[in-house]
Amino acid sequence: MMKSFDDLIKRPVTWLSGEGEHANVVLSSRIRLARNLSKHRYPVRAEPDEAREVVELVRTVVDRSELVKEGIFFNSESLTPDDREILIERHLISPEFMRDEAPRGLFVDDDEASSLMVNEEDHMRIQAVRSGLDIRQALQRARTIERHLAEGLDFDCDTRLGFLTACPTNVGTGLRVSIMIHLPALVLTKEMDTVLSQVNKFGVGVRGFYGEGSDVLGNLFQISNQTTLGRTEEDLVDSLEKVTRQLLMYEENARRRLFTDAPNHIRDKLWRAFGILANARVLSSQEVMNLLSAVRLGVAMGESMGLDLRQVNELMLSVQPAHLQRHFEKEMTTEERDVARAEMVRKMLTRKRTTRRRGPRKSGEN
Amino acid sequence: MMKSFDDLIKRPVTWLSGEGEHANVVLSSRIRLARNLSKHRYPVRAEPDEAREVVELVRTVVDRSELVKEGIFFNSESLTPDDREILIERHLISPEFMRDEAPRGLFVDDDEASSLMVNEEDHMRIQAVRSGLDIRQALQRARTIERHLAEGLDFDCDTRLGFLTACPTNVGTGLRVSIMIHLPALVLTKEMDTVLSQVNKFGVGVRGFYGEGSDVLGNLFQISNQTTLGRTEEDLVDSLEKVTRQLLMYEENARRRLFTDAPNHIRDKLWRAFGILANARVLSSQEVMNLLSAVRLGVAMGESMGLDLRQVNELMLSVQPAHLQRHFEKEMTTEERDVARAEMVRKMLTRKRTTRRRGPRKSGEN
Repeated sequence: MMKSFDDLIKRPVTWLSGEGEHANVVLSSRIRLARNLSKHRYPVRAEPDEAREVVELVRTVVDRSELVKEGIFFNSESLTPDDREILIERHLISPEFMRDEAPRGLFVDDDEASSLMVNEEDHMRIQAVRSGLDIRQALQRARTIERHLAEGLDFDCDTRLGFLTACPTNVGTGLRVSIMIHLPALVLTKEMDTVLSQVNKFGVGVRGFYGEGSDVLGNLFQISNQTTLGRTEEDLVDSLEKVTRQLLMYEENARRRLFTDAPNHIRDKLWRAFGILANARVLSSQEVMNLLSAVRLGVAMGESMGLDLRQVNELMLSVQPAHLQRHFEKEMTTEERDVARAEMVRKMLTRKRTTRRRGPRKSGEN
Repeated sequence: MMKSFDDLIKRPVTWLSGEGEHANVVLSSRIRLARNLSKHRYPVRAEPDEAREVVELVRTVVDRSELVKEGIFFNSESLTPDDREILIERHLISPEFMRDEAPRGLFVDDDEASSLMVNEEDHMRIQAVRSGLDIRQALQRARTIERHLAEGLDFDCDTRLGFLTACPTNVGTGLRVSIMIHLPALVLTKEMDTVLSQVNKFGVGVRGFYGEGSDVLGNLFQISNQTTLGRTEEDLVDSLEKVTRQLLMYEENARRRLFTDAPNHIRDKLWRAFGILANARVLSSQEVMNLLSAVRLGVAMGESMGLDLRQVNELMLSVQPAHLQRHFEKEMTTEERDVARAEMVRKMLTRKRTTRRRGPRKSGEN
């Protein structure tokens, strides 16, 4: 099992590929479908035995379906605390998924483009993610997984309300659409507050890089629908896409304005960030995200910083504490991590500058 | 004449060579001797005709001596405002020397290791400068010039007081010893105030990079004797040297402590400065000096930043406004200069990193 886990996390993360529509601004489009079994108590109420039964039920269905060929199923017991941190940083599981030792399960497909959590808040949380603005493809993948599961499982469903879920906000479609969007120009021009108040009117919520209650790091915002009840999947997808395109337009205008009105000053800001990243000896996880945000804007605006969007996206993941420890193969204090982080970033940025002609670096080399 | 001026300023500045004793901390040792003619009114009282007569008198003596083979004599009328700014930045003349259009003269030797101002505050101000801590050699050179002048001129002298000067603080030897010293570690460790109050007790004054009343830029301090009356040259030199060695020791201890107690943090600070210099698109003259101060400390502590002390010293001069304009061959606004300065520094730092194996860069290439 651990062999497979290591294989998994060494592979490139598809949703960080920097490809797809509007990848300059939109990092990823993520779909989550919440489903529950009709004949079992919900995770929060289930005794360990029943929870274990649910994991095995789902696992059996996965094993019998085509899904088994496309990924790996983990029982939560097989995951060390470090493994869990890694999965959280990769957005494959939520922090809640590991809050206690209750039996849980996780299916992840080989390219991490989709996953399935068993016994998080709901019995099943199906997730699918695509690089760039591509909600529909993500939804299609989530539906495929749902179909496979439906072949062997009875979903808890109410003819009037739709799918039932542990939290009332998810009742109905059980759908959440989340867009990870990079808005450095709107932050720089101090337009975010105005923009956010407009977005909120559309029933769209805004969160930080690591979901609910997390801080905004590196000007990365997650926008998602707040409710699902009484609306169709299509409706939700349309409305999220509409809001995203609006944000996109605001951000692109702000970027253009920054580069037109004061090109030297904005380029100065971005290149200083690059210079600090390429030379610092101590980098906190918060500072590194803000600096990488500036470099990402630079790369998106065509500054020749010797790396591409994918490499910046992947760096944003590699510098997270658990990934950093995995890379250096040792437990570290915060201070040690800050030094190791600076070392990693420095090596990557300088290596990239000298080897960029040889084509993109393999993510697995990290 | 202009041909000669351009030749002059294209040559390396000897006192920035980064050589000599304790060059890691001491940039230069400077001697100034003030002398006046006994039969002419002092510059502040002299009519233009008399001032012109003094210039010609001194010039004739220089022309007849060996000095004429070693340098160039300029009449102030032949120097454009830009030329004057350049000379001020090179510490060859004082701002006071050009405060009005009164007739003045300037002799500079070929390597800018010594100069003679005619009709500054006094009829003659002899200056000699050496890289590193080398007060005695500087004094010897100043005395040689004085001897040449004495062969054809009568100095205003009082048997009891010694040499007479326009300002009473210079009466006696007319000697000022100035040490340009780089004290970044004492500033960082916030010990400067304590150190300065000790230094002041010895009748030693502390000024900024550009003399009297100027700001401290880049942690460069000029320390010099405050009075000369009633003391011998030897006495003054000894006391300045003693104070300098004390400051040196404090600074070296502070550097050692910084690198022992928190090596990552001090290296982080210095390398960030390097990274900003190598990547910024806008650099004010004040910021660039502070960043170069950090880089100078890094180079002095053996960080392989791809440049040597001389190159850092010379950069500190090249980034000054008049030198910058001369380099780009155009008048610029402050904003334009900040952009041009960043461009110049960036190119120098990156060029140096790639070509450093080929040996030191010729200063004349600027």
